[in-house]
Amino acid sequence: MRIEVICTGDEVLTGKTVNTNFTYITQKLEDVGLAVKWETTVGDDRDDLLLAFQLAGARADAVIVNGGLGPTVDDLSQEIAAKAAGVELVLNEAWLARMEAFFARRSRVMPPSNRKQALLPAGAEVLDNPIGTACGFAVNIGKARFHFTPGVPRELRRMLESEIIPRLLETSGLQSAIYLKRFHSFGIGESRADTLLSGVADLVPDGTVKLGFRAHYPQLETKLAARGRDMDDLRRKLAPVEQEVRKRLGHYIVAEDDRTLEGVILDELARREATLTTVEMFTGGQIAGRIAHLPGAEKVFRRGIVTRDLCDVFAAVGLDGRGDGITCESAEAVARAAQRHAGSTHALAVLIDLDEGADRLDFSGNVCIAVAAGGETVPRRSRLVGGRDWVRLGAVEMGLDCLRRTLQGLPVSDRIDFERVEEKN
Amino acid sequence: MRIEVICTGDEVLTGKTVNTNFTYITQKLEDVGLAVKWETTVGDDRDDLLLAFQLAGARADAVIVNGGLGPTVDDLSQEIAAKAAGVELVLNEAWLARMEAFFARRSRVMPPSNRKQALLPAGAEVLDNPIGTACGFAVNIGKARFHFTPGVPRELRRMLESEIIPRLLETSGLQSAIYLKRFHSFGIGESRADTLLSGVADLVPDGTVKLGFRAHYPQLETKLAARGRDMDDLRRKLAPVEQEVRKRLGHYIVAEDDRTLEGVILDELARREATLTTVEMFTGGQIAGRIAHLPGAEKVFRRGIVTRDLCDVFAAVGLDGRGDGITCESAEAVARAAQRHAGSTHALAVLIDLDEGADRLDFSGNVCIAVAAGGETVPRRSRLVGGRDWVRLGAVEMGLDCLRRTLQGLPVSDRIDFERVEEKN
Repeated sequence: MRIEVICTGDEVLTGKTVNTNFTYITQKLEDVGLAVKWETTVGDDRDDLLLAFQLAGARADAVIVNGGLGPTVDDLSQEIAAKAAGVELVLNEAWLARMEAFFARRSRVMPPSNRKQALLPAGAEVLDNPIGTACGFAVNIGKARFHFTPGVPRELRRMLESEIIPRLLETSGLQSAIYLKRFHSFGIGESRADTLLSGVADLVPDGTVKLGFRAHYPQLETKLAARGRDMDDLRRKLAPVEQEVRKRLGHYIVAEDDRTLEGVILDELARREATLTTVEMFTGGQIAGRIAHLPGAEKVFRRGIVTRDLCDVFAAVGLDGRGDGITCESAEAVARAAQRHAGSTHALAVLIDLDEGADRLDFSGNVCIAVAAGGETVPRRSRLVGGRDWVRLGAVEMGLDCLRRTLQGLPVSDRIDFERVEEKN
Repeated sequence: MRIEVICTGDEVLTGKTVNTNFTYITQKLEDVGLAVKWETTVGDDRDDLLLAFQLAGARADAVIVNGGLGPTVDDLSQEIAAKAAGVELVLNEAWLARMEAFFARRSRVMPPSNRKQALLPAGAEVLDNPIGTACGFAVNIGKARFHFTPGVPRELRRMLESEIIPRLLETSGLQSAIYLKRFHSFGIGESRADTLLSGVADLVPDGTVKLGFRAHYPQLETKLAARGRDMDDLRRKLAPVEQEVRKRLGHYIVAEDDRTLEGVILDELARREATLTTVEMFTGGQIAGRIAHLPGAEKVFRRGIVTRDLCDVFAAVGLDGRGDGITCESAEAVARAAQRHAGSTHALAVLIDLDEGADRLDFSGNVCIAVAAGGETVPRRSRLVGGRDWVRLGAVEMGLDCLRRTLQGLPVSDRIDFERVEEKN
């Protein structure tokens, strides 16, 4: 089945808005085993919309159109859909009533301009939008079934998942139960993960399990997508593959599915009724910034301290001097002192000694990390390379990951792909 | 002149990469007064590439193709360009020599696979790429002039600005000196800015000045683009418009052109040889995280303190108790104590009292801000609405903006568009 996507709107075409709706649509379809073959973006222009619809209708089996269902004069999707399908626009009384009720619930009268949103091409099938006034619909143009969706991201997402993907799966004849398993890891690049996981999908010999990756430095997402008769069947099928992925990626997995590294840390700490202090230098508050605002963190996150100077770090946790410079010993001393000073059960200290000079591709930093937990401290040293931003992002992630590993009783010393083995001096 | 863009590559088509290259291209063209009419994304597929080139060649005057110039087997742009243009691929000896020199400078031998990057359609014009091995080129397909560009963002950007935009401006007959002036503001929504600035572009009566906006909450970017004979002419032309924009947006302007709010703050502090302490609650380190890592901040940023509990805030700056709760008086007391405690000349305290319960669209927070500078403290109170993320992002920006306003001797009390007038009890 050939699927195309058409994105509409001057906002997207002129770059005022980055086209994340398209990224969302194509990823979601990939996840269920459907592939987008062609994408077109056109503005709010009658001629271009009509041509885009006609071309896609001549090439594709299914088309998803995004945007242009709003109440304003530049929302043209219904009008051009009707024209391309060779039918009239007809008022959908049921949708009009839905919209009036929608406004009434908010104690407002529906503005007359919204009436336009209930005009659909004759014979169109309604695609429900329970959270907005834009009415989705499906209609045939050329040889393709067109699915019209709203530009508001949360309305699009809901409609895509509840209304459109089930229809596309049915048409495609693909088995419609889909199971998507995701693993988030830190410290493994995409090519190493690909090598480490070679052959895992073949543990299910019928070819219904697909392995994929999505790298967003410094984390890597590994996806397993499976298709089958029903969810029980799928879970049974996928269980040995999941186990094998867990075994091969091992300690590098920081979280699964919708969970995050910082969420895992927060849960581990909350489970122990523990409290956390963080001490940062060049990461500048970005370690605290990952955890302190989360729901539930108000009970766990005790204190975050940021300073750019090692003497200030020592002073901020009640120590004199500056130890022996930026070393693991200093990081351990700072973590222990921070724990005492703020009265928390746990402390994470991330000290960084940056290269001199301007930013450049091989700009590096020596990172000294310590986690204090109870009476123990765990140190970790690394050299990160790749420019100021990469060093900073890498150090934030490595600090958090050392804390996670400590909380989960794992070693913090596993080598990661982003660090240099040789050290400065 | 009708301009189209074709983006190529499975990474973009499957959503592994968000298509920011397209956004960059279309924005850059908009900035110089050129408009993209149509965008197509296709994968690394010979049939789809050929069809996309043919269709665009039949519709457009100029086409920019992005991606597919690399050394691997799935890089197909030159091959399909030659086929669409009806010419052979020819080895460009000059580019081959450039590539060999490129590798030699890095003490490496050019891998044989890179030779492919010097194969261009016969008669193609080279578009220089001084920072990579992908050779840009221009060739006619159908009635359009096609410009092929690399997928690596920094190579694309350089080629677009140095090679392609000048050619497009020449072909379009537009005057080629372009001046783009940008103002970054906080506290004004796009529609209010549009009203405030109505008519400013008409101060230059020949219609060569264009006003535009780009909203990225919580900031708004206002752009003035002008076209003229030469830069002196343009600066002269634009000066009164710039003055008028400054007058009308007034204190809401946080920075101009490539400068940022945090950069302006850092410069103001550095100029005074001043030092800064920040104290945060729900913003969780994200205020410190905007400033502390910047080059130069190591001399200015003295200390950042994050806690989620008001008693902990007081304790962290050496005060007892919790004052009278989250009020402006508490924020002022905390800012003064933070200044003393860390020995800094300036301190910013941002205290937040969040609504109870789960996140929702009308989730709100009362924000109490104080800036201590020398012996003075300046308070600001606000109620921000729009869900946990919006409250947090708004509070970060408002805290930083109060600091900027204090440093620039401006009032902090100007009402902003994102706050509610009514307050919680």
